[in-house]
Amino acid sequence: MPNPTAAMLVIGDEILSGRTRDANMHYLAGELAKTGIDLKEVRIVSDTAEAITDAVGTLADTYTHVFTSGGIGPTHDDITADCIAAAFSLAIDVRDDARAILEEHYQRTGTALNEARLRMARIPEGATLIDNPVSAAPGFTLGNVHVMAGVPQIFQAMVASVLPTLTGGAPLLSQSLRIERGEGDIAGPLAKLAQEFPDLTIGSYPYSHSGTFGAHIVIRGHDGARLDAAMQKLSRLFPE
Amino acid sequence: MPNPTAAMLVIGDEILSGRTRDANMHYLAGELAKTGIDLKEVRIVSDTAEAITDAVGTLADTYTHVFTSGGIGPTHDDITADCIAAAFSLAIDVRDDARAILEEHYQRTGTALNEARLRMARIPEGATLIDNPVSAAPGFTLGNVHVMAGVPQIFQAMVASVLPTLTGGAPLLSQSLRIERGEGDIAGPLAKLAQEFPDLTIGSYPYSHSGTFGAHIVIRGHDGARLDAAMQKLSRLFPE
Repeated sequence: MPNPTAAMLVIGDEILSGRTRDANMHYLAGELAKTGIDLKEVRIVSDTAEAITDAVGTLADTYTHVFTSGGIGPTHDDITADCIAAAFSLAIDVRDDARAILEEHYQRTGTALNEARLRMARIPEGATLIDNPVSAAPGFTLGNVHVMAGVPQIFQAMVASVLPTLTGGAPLLSQSLRIERGEGDIAGPLAKLAQEFPDLTIGSYPYSHSGTFGAHIVIRGHDGARLDAAMQKLSRLFPE
Repeated sequence: MPNPTAAMLVIGDEILSGRTRDANMHYLAGELAKTGIDLKEVRIVSDTAEAITDAVGTLADTYTHVFTSGGIGPTHDDITADCIAAAFSLAIDVRDDARAILEEHYQRTGTALNEARLRMARIPEGATLIDNPVSAAPGFTLGNVHVMAGVPQIFQAMVASVLPTLTGGAPLLSQSLRIERGEGDIAGPLAKLAQEFPDLTIGSYPYSHSGTFGAHIVIRGHDGARLDAAMQKLSRLFPE
């Protein structure tokens, strides 16, 4: 059975403007590889309702799972939950279970649960809450869309809450070999190897630093024995 | 006149698999902000013909410019040029001008221009070459799509070659203020400020480290005087 597939949607004005580098993508990619859910696409869109709603709709129709990051805090630019509800044509309002979580948290920390903070209890109809052990305000899963915070520490905690609830497949394995030769000399034999192992993906990533150059050859796939076989052939093709 | 818009397409198995963190996106975002071309979307897709061709077609129809990174080297997994040609239904073959650039470069470095390296002279019909001062093999512009290498050093050199040929707009300016208060306390006044300045985008990015927490408020827009006015109001709302 083929692995489930996934896309990630980053709500990301702060990335598109060049201000920050995304960290959640790299983290999620690694976790999904281990879980055996194949990450096929990432989209970063701006913090506008149309961009978010359109992207969620398309990605949810195309992949087994969609993971979003960002835009579920208490400020005016946090519009993700409303956009997800709109994408599924579902109602959204403050929900009692989410409100109870916030009430308990803010009571304990001696902070007022004001109108802005209460926005974080707005959850679309029919969604399941995702636990947030860092700062309480929950994410949620609606259909095949998993909605999580953008702050890396909270995003990672939410990924840890949600991934064990999903059915994974065979983990994505990878092995790599550094070859200190120009890609142009590696390319011919490598193409033949790729043809011999159509069930694996073989990538070539050139590098050059301080006068030496070459390529990292990365072999990926779900069957460890096949990876070993391909890597042994590769090593024989390019002895050190 | 509104600024031209842009999308970036990263051909990125090595990112989707969790192996590497993308660096080109952050670089391009910063350069486009300075040039006054508004980066609206980034997509990262796997190294398959269908994924690349579909994404290029959609993005080229939607935005003023599309910038791609990756997949134009000499190895079997370098299929970007062929996919771009397919997306525009144009022929692609080794082109004399690109071949001449490679011949000169490899002659000078004493390297054989073999069949694999010659693949890097495959350029779609009607495309304009993008200069590569690092390793010679050119990128190209076809219609509104700018096709560049994935190696960061080469990508950056190609961006420097191509951006001066494009018509930009007003640079994206930004100012930020760190406020050491919870986002829930900032949210109310901040929403009112955002309503007063609908021509600016005001983002709130929470942080917490070593016991202190707060948010970076980032105000972005194209009119420096408006940014100054909004930032002055913000500072008065939250005096240190």
